[in-house]
Amino acid sequence: MRDVALLEPKEIRALIRKQEITGPTAGLSKGYTQANLAILKKEHAFDFLLFCQRNTKQCPLLDVTEPGSFRPALIAKDADIRTDFPKYRIYRDGVFSEEVTDITNFWEDDMVAFLIGCSFTFERPLLESGIPIRHIEENCNVPMYKTNIPCVKAGIFEGPTVVSMRPMSSADAIRAVQITSRFPAVHGAPLHIGDPSQIGIYDLSTPDFGDAVTIKAGEVPVFWACGVTPQAVAMESKPSIMITHAPGCMFISDVKDKAYSVL
Amino acid sequence: MRDVALLEPKEIRALIRKQEITGPTAGLSKGYTQANLAILKKEHAFDFLLFCQRNTKQCPLLDVTEPGSFRPALIAKDADIRTDFPKYRIYRDGVFSEEVTDITNFWEDDMVAFLIGCSFTFERPLLESGIPIRHIEENCNVPMYKTNIPCVKAGIFEGPTVVSMRPMSSADAIRAVQITSRFPAVHGAPLHIGDPSQIGIYDLSTPDFGDAVTIKAGEVPVFWACGVTPQAVAMESKPSIMITHAPGCMFISDVKDKAYSVL
Repeated sequence: MRDVALLEPKEIRALIRKQEITGPTAGLSKGYTQANLAILKKEHAFDFLLFCQRNTKQCPLLDVTEPGSFRPALIAKDADIRTDFPKYRIYRDGVFSEEVTDITNFWEDDMVAFLIGCSFTFERPLLESGIPIRHIEENCNVPMYKTNIPCVKAGIFEGPTVVSMRPMSSADAIRAVQITSRFPAVHGAPLHIGDPSQIGIYDLSTPDFGDAVTIKAGEVPVFWACGVTPQAVAMESKPSIMITHAPGCMFISDVKDKAYSVL
Repeated sequence: MRDVALLEPKEIRALIRKQEITGPTAGLSKGYTQANLAILKKEHAFDFLLFCQRNTKQCPLLDVTEPGSFRPALIAKDADIRTDFPKYRIYRDGVFSEEVTDITNFWEDDMVAFLIGCSFTFERPLLESGIPIRHIEENCNVPMYKTNIPCVKAGIFEGPTVVSMRPMSSADAIRAVQITSRFPAVHGAPLHIGDPSQIGIYDLSTPDFGDAVTIKAGEVPVFWACGVTPQAVAMESKPSIMITHAPGCMFISDVKDKAYSVL
């Protein structure tokens, strides 16, 4: 059996398109950037684009399609965002309606797809620098929390910043600031280090999304803006239809993680 | 007489609003970020925002107003973009029609203002690191050139990248890469170093915009993406009305240059 982790993005996307892969993409096509998805109709696209522009730490856009186009021309020009995610979720008026593996039948001529960066892109250089990542060690999803840090409003879109949390030693936290600062296009430096109550988080053991992880003695929690933010905010506005990827089932682009490093 | 270079941005903007300052803003309110302006009607705003999003090196957006709002809430929340630039230019169908010091009478309820970063923001840290900047030494405008590097198209907007050029020693060029890499929000690292013909520039002594500068023996030309690009591209699309600042007459924000450094 071939090791799918070593396939090229194009090959992985072909398997996904044929529905031979319909699950989480973590670890697939290592070194290539993965993206989250939010599809909205054109009527909301300007406001949502403005929201992302005003909240770049929470909403790092890797690509935005022309209205009606399903080609993410900047990050994978031969891909089709209607078929190349393993799994999608359809929301009507902000309410989850169904999960599907292909959205060709849901696609409309005035839809705009937003491909949003994710922390996978900076976790790899953290690991390569010898910084252990707890949720990877514990084989679970990263813990995510709603904070009291408001996003900057844009049109109908507003809401709180969601953060992801990684516990680490102080020395590793300093190094992690340096490393993730190189990736302003993918969340960049942490938003907060230390006392969670300062950003409105009162119990690290009950994350709003994802799974709780162990925090060892002497470790500090380090918080990064999380790409769940724009999806959560868009959902709050109850658009007539919105399509996202299913959790963990992301898009594998042709762009290497390293290409997003500014230094 | 007070030294206007040392006034706070708010005080400078008040003088500009009263039309006591109607000329270039270079050197005013040192250390605070200045911004270029492009105002378009809502019908073109999504495409233009998408264009900026796809070409962040050429089009670093510092702020985008809500449609109809003249408050640049992110970078100077009490300012009024209709009165707080020393001088504006009105273009109708892509043709220059007039220069004015106040656009209150031209403002429409569906206008969107794009405030675009400029290289002033990274020139200061270059100077502070002891890198001489020729056009400042020679007291003229930076030379700018059209290149053969196409911008990524978005809707009706497309065109070539315009670059600014600063000649310097090789050692300074290396240091300049490091310094400007810290400012991904304001053009970031250079696009090109050395042979101009590789990017379609055949005569450095005849810039397309700005003034030619001396290149000394042993110096290399270093090229950065330039904020003139989005204005030039928007103009090409001949929108019914477009308003920009007059060259050199920019907006002084409340944000310090240093705030745009990621490291």
